[in-house]
Amino acid sequence: MIANDLVDCGAVKFGDFTLTSGKKSRYYVDIKQASTDPGMLAKIAELMGENMNGEELIAGVELGAVPLAAALALETGKPYLIIRKPGRGHGTAKRLEGKFSPGQRVVLVEDVITTAGSSIEGIKVLRDAGLEVSRVIVVVDREEGGEEALKKHDIELISLATASQLLEIEGGE
Amino acid sequence: MIANDLVDCGAVKFGDFTLTSGKKSRYYVDIKQASTDPGMLAKIAELMGENMNGEELIAGVELGAVPLAAALALETGKPYLIIRKPGRGHGTAKRLEGKFSPGQRVVLVEDVITTAGSSIEGIKVLRDAGLEVSRVIVVVDREEGGEEALKKHDIELISLATASQLLEIEGGE
Repeated sequence: MIANDLVDCGAVKFGDFTLTSGKKSRYYVDIKQASTDPGMLAKIAELMGENMNGEELIAGVELGAVPLAAALALETGKPYLIIRKPGRGHGTAKRLEGKFSPGQRVVLVEDVITTAGSSIEGIKVLRDAGLEVSRVIVVVDREEGGEEALKKHDIELISLATASQLLEIEGGE
Repeated sequence: MIANDLVDCGAVKFGDFTLTSGKKSRYYVDIKQASTDPGMLAKIAELMGENMNGEELIAGVELGAVPLAAALALETGKPYLIIRKPGRGHGTAKRLEGKFSPGQRVVLVEDVITTAGSSIEGIKVLRDAGLEVSRVIVVVDREEGGEEALKKHDIELISLATASQLLEIEGGE
């Protein structure tokens, strides 16, 4: 189970944490501890590849999902798009880096999903560009409403690891 | 020669361009057209891997070099570091994402080098963290003083393609 690997490589830490939102949490996720480790990055890409559903393109929001999208592209041979964050000098037109044609099917990859705000914003950018997106693959679903929020936008969430799995590992330590 | 592939995949375009610096240029480089293409990304990573010199770590400045660093990590099995841009809420201490120990040898990868300002800034972050860096591998050296500027910081520049090669291709078209 990749949840164990995430703990082992230091991408998930247990303790008393206060998140940026002000909320308290029993665990903290820093996927970059996994995505900068070539073994973990390859494993994540392999699992994401198994969960693709014939999509022609991959997309990831900067910065956290970019190494995941690049690794998945290398794994599958499908090109990827980088979704830029808004308001850094690049207009709406240039929020998508990479080549695409309207009508293409794209899967969004994410590092961590909490309420899915960043994913929904990314999906809007993809749909505004005429792309078809119906699935998000995430490394860690914190299970704090993201799946339900995505469902409202007709998006299915596939997670490689969940908060429940992580807290089970903590309990077993 | 990878210069030809960069032109073929649309990462290098010829024409009359005005760069962000205000300078005029005969060609324009958008490496993301190459780094979002899995075939080109794999080729770049392979060439960069051949040019490594036993370094234990890879580093890349966000955003452009991140897919290159991730791909090179997958190619070589060496971990990589992301060098964050300054002043987005993360203090100096947190400008390096990923695991490292002081004294480790690291190679910096870059997408495009003009005057090498961004690379020199990245090298400063690496050296401040106690890492040893003596080489930069870049996809395109625009040959506008970057190599000389890096030399002043005891850094050797290795380029996969140069402005001269690109302009030779333009002449042959």
